[in-house]
Amino acid sequence: MAETKYNFGMIGLGTMGRNLLLNMADHGFPVAGYDINPDQVAGFEKEGEGKPVKGFTDLATMIEHLSTPRALMMLVPAGKPVDNVIEKLLPLLEPGDIIIDGGNSHYTDTIIRDKYLDEKGFHFFGMGISGGEEGARKGPSLMPGGDKQAYLTLKPIFDAIAAQVDGVPCVTYIGPGASGHFVKMVHNGIEYGLMQLIAETYEILRKGLQLDNQELHQLFKTWNEGRLQSFLVEVTRDIFGFRENGSEQYLVDLIKDQAKSKGTGKWTSQVAMELEVPIPTIDTAVAMRDLSKYKTLRVRAAAVYGDEPAALDVDKEEFLKSIEEALYFCTIMTYAQGLDLLYRSSISYGYNLDLAGIAKIWRGGCIIRAALLNDIFNAYEKAPSLEHLLLDDSIRELVARSVGGMRYVLTSAITAGIAVPAYAASLTYFDSFRSENMPSNLIQAQRDYFGAHTYELIGKEGVFHTHWTPLPGKP
Amino acid sequence: MAETKYNFGMIGLGTMGRNLLLNMADHGFPVAGYDINPDQVAGFEKEGEGKPVKGFTDLATMIEHLSTPRALMMLVPAGKPVDNVIEKLLPLLEPGDIIIDGGNSHYTDTIIRDKYLDEKGFHFFGMGISGGEEGARKGPSLMPGGDKQAYLTLKPIFDAIAAQVDGVPCVTYIGPGASGHFVKMVHNGIEYGLMQLIAETYEILRKGLQLDNQELHQLFKTWNEGRLQSFLVEVTRDIFGFRENGSEQYLVDLIKDQAKSKGTGKWTSQVAMELEVPIPTIDTAVAMRDLSKYKTLRVRAAAVYGDEPAALDVDKEEFLKSIEEALYFCTIMTYAQGLDLLYRSSISYGYNLDLAGIAKIWRGGCIIRAALLNDIFNAYEKAPSLEHLLLDDSIRELVARSVGGMRYVLTSAITAGIAVPAYAASLTYFDSFRSENMPSNLIQAQRDYFGAHTYELIGKEGVFHTHWTPLPGKP
Repeated sequence: MAETKYNFGMIGLGTMGRNLLLNMADHGFPVAGYDINPDQVAGFEKEGEGKPVKGFTDLATMIEHLSTPRALMMLVPAGKPVDNVIEKLLPLLEPGDIIIDGGNSHYTDTIIRDKYLDEKGFHFFGMGISGGEEGARKGPSLMPGGDKQAYLTLKPIFDAIAAQVDGVPCVTYIGPGASGHFVKMVHNGIEYGLMQLIAETYEILRKGLQLDNQELHQLFKTWNEGRLQSFLVEVTRDIFGFRENGSEQYLVDLIKDQAKSKGTGKWTSQVAMELEVPIPTIDTAVAMRDLSKYKTLRVRAAAVYGDEPAALDVDKEEFLKSIEEALYFCTIMTYAQGLDLLYRSSISYGYNLDLAGIAKIWRGGCIIRAALLNDIFNAYEKAPSLEHLLLDDSIRELVARSVGGMRYVLTSAITAGIAVPAYAASLTYFDSFRSENMPSNLIQAQRDYFGAHTYELIGKEGVFHTHWTPLPGKP
Repeated sequence: MAETKYNFGMIGLGTMGRNLLLNMADHGFPVAGYDINPDQVAGFEKEGEGKPVKGFTDLATMIEHLSTPRALMMLVPAGKPVDNVIEKLLPLLEPGDIIIDGGNSHYTDTIIRDKYLDEKGFHFFGMGISGGEEGARKGPSLMPGGDKQAYLTLKPIFDAIAAQVDGVPCVTYIGPGASGHFVKMVHNGIEYGLMQLIAETYEILRKGLQLDNQELHQLFKTWNEGRLQSFLVEVTRDIFGFRENGSEQYLVDLIKDQAKSKGTGKWTSQVAMELEVPIPTIDTAVAMRDLSKYKTLRVRAAAVYGDEPAALDVDKEEFLKSIEEALYFCTIMTYAQGLDLLYRSSISYGYNLDLAGIAKIWRGGCIIRAALLNDIFNAYEKAPSLEHLLLDDSIRELVARSVGGMRYVLTSAITAGIAVPAYAASLTYFDSFRSENMPSNLIQAQRDYFGAHTYELIGKEGVFHTHWTPLPGKP
């Protein structure tokens, strides 16, 4: 009697790996999971009781139980662990087998692994997965890039497990090479920006208007029923309403104000700088995660400089209306920056990205899903070669209708001394972007003055250098 | 008859290399220079007429003419060209010879080269050089790091050619490894920040107050006589006063507003993110150089969104007083961020940096020399282990006396729609830094909510995870 063969093998049965397998099993795919830790394996089998799942504590044994060509996904921490797993896998596999990196690997690592495994005859692709633990279990957003043939072999599984929006699965082939991981990285960069903006909204409301958690909960609830509707606003709504069983205190008030990070936001900013794409809202979010770790210094600085903001001198109702506009405005700027990075990386790396397709799969399952992505999808669907989101007519309307509140909230917060770095980065990005003339002519003059770096002239070909100073001895 | 032996050999006779050699020759050191381009060599010999200089178009021949141990400096573009020169040099040198990289190499490259050359028995050090062409000729600021013995061998030459402030040469041994290039990189990051801030000052004054170039020239002249005194303010003063011979038009108005860069600002931001040090003013300066290249898009955006700022609704005299405060405030924030990066890199990389010593050598010769560096020097001299510049009492005084004008100018500019991203980044950095409580507790709650990333509690050891949502089916 033939043994059951499993269609898919997972390496790493942490929350994400376990949940993805259970999701596949729910859709009828027999799946196998391996973890070095027997407790993880036991937990997985327990959760999967009654479903076609099997756990293994030995990698070779699991691989023997996979149907061919074998399909294996790694879900292990980025960096060296991924390479370690690959080295363990290789002697156990045969050419033609498929290896998927479903973790948050840096795309430059994915490029190297792609080449390495291709030379050995294996199919490899990197796949961004977003949605957190719940997304993995019930329907994530999937961003596969690389070996297209291998992806198509597994497409039925991914189509089945992905989040569905209007009957369309939130998964699409992203492009060649490391594009899947690249797009996931930018997704996370946008996520950093949005989280920082929501945090600053909280800062303004609690320090400037003295809203309590219950009021914040109600406000985010209302917002989540309007154009701000998004997973992160929904999450925030729930957090402001959450008290532990029997506790008087809201949990959010008990949590340390030092934010951790796993590096994908930082990577996004570093890569954007490499590609010369301005994404200041995201850069600021990264910097503020870092500053949040300066707790001791901040306590000392607060003692030295004072940190009690002045009360906001505003009409509360009007201000609450404006701050909804402000957060909406900043949200648009964050997506615009992230999509600009995708647009330009697509040119630099030849990814040939379909931005409408990406906006489409981001509408469900992933952390940055939001009502706004419908507008973004429409913009790129209408004009696939749109050079910048802010140049779309409908988006322009949304910006125009929210910039007034944005300016009002930002200046009010700055006057009161409330820290709003990402708010400020978003509006100043917009004001710079719509500047036909930036003051950068002065920077070019300065560079030429002290470094003979030359400059270009308006309406005249060539580069020029000037000796800007009077000769020595002359004043 | 013994031939003349030269004390120092330069590889690359561009502006910087030529001027450094002429500077050495002025102080009596016989020096040799090599360039592949015979015109450069001829130009160098012509400029050096009557001085102990000699040019070569053949590298081996120059090396034969150097006294031993040979000392050679490379001044070639960063990256591959440096490695190419090293490979050409090695067969021509003997163990014990000294190779100096005086260019703007990335410090991670310097680490690799240091190890490589050390293993082959050569002395190697990286040296940051700032001051542009004029500094190189008359007195630069020098930042040597790495092989200390080799540096000490050449100290007499560097002491002689460096800028002198109060009789003290602007050169000091920075520290081990790649610390010289690291410190130079951060110097350039600060330079990016200051240049962007001056450019935004110009933007506010020309678009908001309609000052013409002659008025700007006068204003920067006045500022350069006060606490804002600095090389970059002086440069800006000269630029606003500059017309080509017989021209009616100021040259600055004819220059394209697309700023170029050689990458050191970008590196500073990328490295700061790697080390988790927030330097948002510098990040913003990098992003704005990038945005300045979006000329076509900006023209289109200006047409769509309009880019005529509202007139500043301010009292001109009061505003001019305030904007001096604002620029001063932002300048402090920029140095504070750069020095924080040095402080933390020193811990991460074991550089054991003497921040007072660095402030001291930056007071003369280099692009970021400024009256403020005396205050900074005093702060670190008084407290060598000062954890952050903003915690020094005297600096606090300077900040307190300028933050009022800062807030006023920033909110006025934002209200008028004038783009002031680095101004905004500087003030919001300050407001965040002095926040005992940041809203980052919310970010940690969000991360735990969707990713099970856990959080920490105030006053309680350990990490915690909460299931934040009602169970499915419950509202």
